[in-house]
Amino acid sequence: MANTFGTLFRLTTFGESHGPGVGAVVDGCPAGVPFNIEMLRRDLSRRRPGQSLTTQRNEPDEPEILSGVFEGATTGAPIAVLVRNSDQRSHDYAPLADLYRPSHADFTYAKKYGVRDHRGGGRASARETLARVVGGAVARMLLQSQLPLVVRAAVTTLGGITAQRDVAEMNPDHIYDSPVRCADHQAEQAMIALLEELRAAGDSAGGIISVHVDGLPAGLGEPIYDKLNARLAAAMISINGAMGFEMGAGFAVGTSRGSANNDQFVETEGRLRTATNNSGGVQGGISNGMPLRFRVAFKPPSSIAIPQQHGSSGGDVVTHAVQGRHDPSIVVRAVPVVEAMTLMTLADLWLLSRASAGVA
Amino acid sequence: MANTFGTLFRLTTFGESHGPGVGAVVDGCPAGVPFNIEMLRRDLSRRRPGQSLTTQRNEPDEPEILSGVFEGATTGAPIAVLVRNSDQRSHDYAPLADLYRPSHADFTYAKKYGVRDHRGGGRASARETLARVVGGAVARMLLQSQLPLVVRAAVTTLGGITAQRDVAEMNPDHIYDSPVRCADHQAEQAMIALLEELRAAGDSAGGIISVHVDGLPAGLGEPIYDKLNARLAAAMISINGAMGFEMGAGFAVGTSRGSANNDQFVETEGRLRTATNNSGGVQGGISNGMPLRFRVAFKPPSSIAIPQQHGSSGGDVVTHAVQGRHDPSIVVRAVPVVEAMTLMTLADLWLLSRASAGVA
Amino acid sequence: MANTFGTLFRLTTFGESHGPGVGAVVDGCPAGVPFNIEMLRRDLSRRRPGQSLTTQRNEPDEPEILSGVFEGATTGAPIAVLVRNSDQRSHDYAPLADLYRPSHADFTYAKKYGVRDHRGGGRASARETLARVVGGAVARMLLQSQLPLVVRAAVTTLGGITAQRDVAEMNPDHIYDSPVRCADHQAEQAMIALLEELRAAGDSAGGIISVHVDGLPAGLGEPIYDKLNARLAAAMISINGAMGFEMGAGFAVGTSRGSANNDQFVETEGRLRTATNNSGGVQGGISNGMPLRFRVAFKPPSSIAIPQQHGSSGGDVVTHAVQGRHDPSIVVRAVPVVEAMTLMTLADLWLLSRASAGVA
Amino acid sequence: MANTFGTLFRLTTFGESHGPGVGAVVDGCPAGVPFNIEMLRRDLSRRRPGQSLTTQRNEPDEPEILSGVFEGATTGAPIAVLVRNSDQRSHDYAPLADLYRPSHADFTYAKKYGVRDHRGGGRASARETLARVVGGAVARMLLQSQLPLVVRAAVTTLGGITAQRDVAEMNPDHIYDSPVRCADHQAEQAMIALLEELRAAGDSAGGIISVHVDGLPAGLGEPIYDKLNARLAAAMISINGAMGFEMGAGFAVGTSRGSANNDQFVETEGRLRTATNNSGGVQGGISNGMPLRFRVAFKPPSSIAIPQQHGSSGGDVVTHAVQGRHDPSIVVRAVPVVEAMTLMTLADLWLLSRASAGVA
Repeated sequence: MANTFGTLFRLTTFGESHGPGVGAVVDGCPAGVPFNIEMLRRDLSRRRPGQSLTTQRNEPDEPEILSGVFEGATTGAPIAVLVRNSDQRSHDYAPLADLYRPSHADFTYAKKYGVRDHRGGGRASARETLARVVGGAVARMLLQSQLPLVVRAAVTTLGGITAQRDVAEMNPDHIYDSPVRCADHQAEQAMIALLEELRAAGDSAGGIISVHVDGLPAGLGEPIYDKLNARLAAAMISINGAMGFEMGAGFAVGTSRGSANNDQFVETEGRLRTATNNSGGVQGGISNGMPLRFRVAFKPPSSIAIPQQHGSSGGDVVTHAVQGRHDPSIVVRAVPVVEAMTLMTLADLWLLSRASAGVA
Repeated sequence: MANTFGTLFRLTTFGESHGPGVGAVVDGCPAGVPFNIEMLRRDLSRRRPGQSLTTQRNEPDEPEILSGVFEGATTGAPIAVLVRNSDQRSHDYAPLADLYRPSHADFTYAKKYGVRDHRGGGRASARETLARVVGGAVARMLLQSQLPLVVRAAVTTLGGITAQRDVAEMNPDHIYDSPVRCADHQAEQAMIALLEELRAAGDSAGGIISVHVDGLPAGLGEPIYDKLNARLAAAMISINGAMGFEMGAGFAVGTSRGSANNDQFVETEGRLRTATNNSGGVQGGISNGMPLRFRVAFKPPSSIAIPQQHGSSGGDVVTHAVQGRHDPSIVVRAVPVVEAMTLMTLADLWLLSRASAGVA
Repeated sequence: MANTFGTLFRLTTFGESHGPGVGAVVDGCPAGVPFNIEMLRRDLSRRRPGQSLTTQRNEPDEPEILSGVFEGATTGAPIAVLVRNSDQRSHDYAPLADLYRPSHADFTYAKKYGVRDHRGGGRASARETLARVVGGAVARMLLQSQLPLVVRAAVTTLGGITAQRDVAEMNPDHIYDSPVRCADHQAEQAMIALLEELRAAGDSAGGIISVHVDGLPAGLGEPIYDKLNARLAAAMISINGAMGFEMGAGFAVGTSRGSANNDQFVETEGRLRTATNNSGGVQGGISNGMPLRFRVAFKPPSSIAIPQQHGSSGGDVVTHAVQGRHDPSIVVRAVPVVEAMTLMTLADLWLLSRASAGVA
Repeated sequence: MANTFGTLFRLTTFGESHGPGVGAVVDGCPAGVPFNIEMLRRDLSRRRPGQSLTTQRNEPDEPEILSGVFEGATTGAPIAVLVRNSDQRSHDYAPLADLYRPSHADFTYAKKYGVRDHRGGGRASARETLARVVGGAVARMLLQSQLPLVVRAAVTTLGGITAQRDVAEMNPDHIYDSPVRCADHQAEQAMIALLEELRAAGDSAGGIISVHVDGLPAGLGEPIYDKLNARLAAAMISINGAMGFEMGAGFAVGTSRGSANNDQFVETEGRLRTATNNSGGVQGGISNGMPLRFRVAFKPPSSIAIPQQHGSSGGDVVTHAVQGRHDPSIVVRAVPVVEAMTLMTLADLWLLSRASAGVA
């Protein structure tokens, strides 16, 4: 519901870009999970600007654990984490009090709520994704205590430049060593050059993140409307700027035939697997034990330095060039957010699968 | 949750392919909506096999209204509709009691639940979508009593054949006049030929449905996790066989720039609109009053007549050719289901927007 | 939400008193529970009029299982059960189309919905409780397959007559052998005489049901807002005519002291128990392994043969005596409903406890 | 769910008694509600120890508004409020690391979670109710901007001493002027004397809070399982130490007859009302426009200075006298909590009624 994500593993978030801070309350994490604050700090830093080429805002993002952890482990109580905003430049946004930026949430928030916190996007700011990363870090702690889970997410397309290596072959740490979150040297270099060109031009580019998850057991996902793939779709498309989601073979099925697309069974080491993985690890909404595979498309950031036609609260159209810091790409900073949403979705479905397991 | 879809406008469904019938309970529809049983019958018949080229199962699908309607209008009580199964051929499925068909839900259901109703896919059968169409018909009755809503959904790609006309230009009735749900004569003829070829070959093809919704006001969608686009994504990917979802410009943003992708404002007849609609009618998760535009990819049906490698409950791999009736395409029969899921999503968010409207 | 009860073990109900029938959809029951249709029939018959002294409406209440059961066991899919109405006398209610009966839901439904199905109370009829009994029977099947659960519920007060035996000492079957659901011979005889007197006078009486549940493990209930006792309270007060709920010592705590009310620990057979049970088996919202104990008060039925002041849809007050069949007591027929709501609440919290169990 | 209360107006809380602080996130409050921080401070101070005779812990409870308020009004975004703990004496609780206090949540938390934050009750501490008061204050701001609502809640019974004045006649401010929250001078004096006696004896007493709500329109409450009275029951019984809930005539219906208990209609100033209010303002789960009336019983605090039999984590029974600060009564400090839960329940149902209103 609105600012809460998940059914049993639930993240509730709050905070605006230019208010006191951003917070996350994780409810439903079982007791007894070792709480690894370094993992949380690492995940936050991976989302943080300054880690990459793509933003100039710089905040330490130090998490304060307010509840739910005792003697190094979760207690079953809600885990609240607050990250204060420290680098707010509200004055940058003053001209925007009465302007609606193109392809931003300004106009729609004004229409929906009547009032609007115009400072830096307010609640609709990408800074909200910080709280998602907090939730994802807790989900990671839970899942890694239970499963041999490895999540790989990388930028595989940026502004038309596409990696030739499959994300399945990328080392998760190497992905984060790359300033464009792409462990494919040739593509990475081209992407870096593109971002520099975009920054100079005051423009931005869209891209695609590919995800590969190993170590998931069969049986996760609740038919009919809480299918694992449907949940992932909602999780991904809820991220700022996400425009598309595809699972396994994805949109390419529009040109394929059943005889080629079906994942036929093979037996490996006494275990049934599938020879191909066009299903992306999900059949009938339930994981089949093969790797999860999906992709998410992110639009070019809407904030560009080039003058554009804005709407005004008075109903006029005004040519304006947005001032302030702009990322030439969302997709780079979205990688840890995609990971976080994946992890929370899996944590939720893992808890649901504990509840819904057969009793025969 | 599982077999319930929606928050305030809620569809709960039940029933297996080869049990007594399939049912839908719609809870949360306000009182006073004129109940149009002919609209329900029409929507059910549009989903029904025999209307199209793509299936050979033939059932009348006559809905029995069990509750919630009094003197021609809804009462605010749950509306239950039962459609009995009449054309069950369970014997066709006997060989499948111990076999897992490739790319079907057989294996995953067995792993998740321990027990499995193997008759015709049981709960995972496409017959479940009938209940979705019931919910969609009620949502349509509600929304059309309140909004000048027009929903267009058509097959725009089938087995690699792509319509040249935009769905926005297709008349909804003409779409359903087409046996392949495509109001583009040239593409339609090629698709029909392809389906005949596939049927002869015992193979199947995937495709893409494009959707265009006019008449929606600005303000629908609840940030942050119940965004209109996130809800649509979940709704679409929850449909059997859906592999991808994209909004507005979709995956094409991977090659675009902000300066081209941004939807700049224009003023038309004293009203702010956008010059382009790459956002697909949604910004920040909230409708902006422009048409909704999205696309959904459906895989080729997994049931084909060609022998394939099945898994067995004993852990072996068995070469088997599935007998019985097969659709060479899901995408054709999925059109009214996509419409239904769209309508229910919008009905739910419309009710939520009544609740969440500002009080200033 | 509205017509759905429960979080993981969910009952969704539909149907009006004078429509085609009443139905229940139970979603979330795990696969592999032996389905005992005789237990369902027995529970329905215990709620059925004609079994007791208190009503003259007589319907067979034969359940039709529409889904979710295969080869004698649950499959994890929703279990839908339909019970058709057979003994409808709508003409009895014709005079009530424009009248609001005192202490009925007529006036409030009219105010809330604008339209109203006035036939026999429509959705607000006690016939709706039949669907609760269906849900309770499935919950019983699930819980009894997992726990040594014994639920005792009996009428312990009726029209001021109070049983001297504690419900904990009553045999569940003996309770149902009693036409007033009270396995205390002396109180039972007085209650029977009172009901005959009330029927003759056209009046009705209120009463209290006491519940005692053995066999529940410690650990059920989810703090803070889904406490076992809070869930039971909502479950009980949601039953038609329920006016009060108390747990353990209940309202008597208003005169007690901590030194007397505290449940001090004792050790019995190597296990910690409490010497008293003023907590009613719940501490901090979580079961402590002691028997659950609570009581529910039901008002006298509002339908009496004595002329009363009715409201009219025109805003007038009209003296009217309601015709038709009247129960002189709700509380007698409410016993299996109280059991059903108890069982469903426990089933839901049992599933939640599987999900929320610590991982240390 | 667990630490979230409400469906559309949702309170999520976090924080332990002896951690950094306690927090509340209110999601679903519409935009445009004037935010009155003085009302919040007042409500928090009414709950605060030191305001009354009943506790010796003294904390300033200064709320920090972290989000959701802009230029003096709500924005539709979540409103997060943090209150830091300042007066923690964890050392008082060291002896309790391995002891389960009688009638506390120590034993049940240990059984449920395996791990336990034993400092001052951890999450089960009454300090959690502070976060409820935050939610209630926001609900009050919302409702008072829309309705002429007056909520009166007072202690009407304490340790057997019962007020003779009806709560309906008490002025809300006078109630809070009383250190025992009872605007009945004679009862108040006796209650004060009793609390002093109890403090000297190291004992505690239970009591009853009566609530009267004026100004509610007809039509609030969602049948069948989200009835206004069922929601209130859950809200009240979720408060620490609540043992009973009754609506209108409550448990007294056990001795009443329909002819006396029915609320017959009268017409006053062209409006239908009822001559009596045994229904407590709710019929069929929906408000009827009469005042809401209900009562809640609270047990004597379990923490007393008298030695009692504790359980130990080793399975033994140990005689121990709990050290530290003890309230001789919960009921006095529970008054603003009962108000808060009432207000949040009404805010939620008011939002739901906006969504579920008929469209005829």
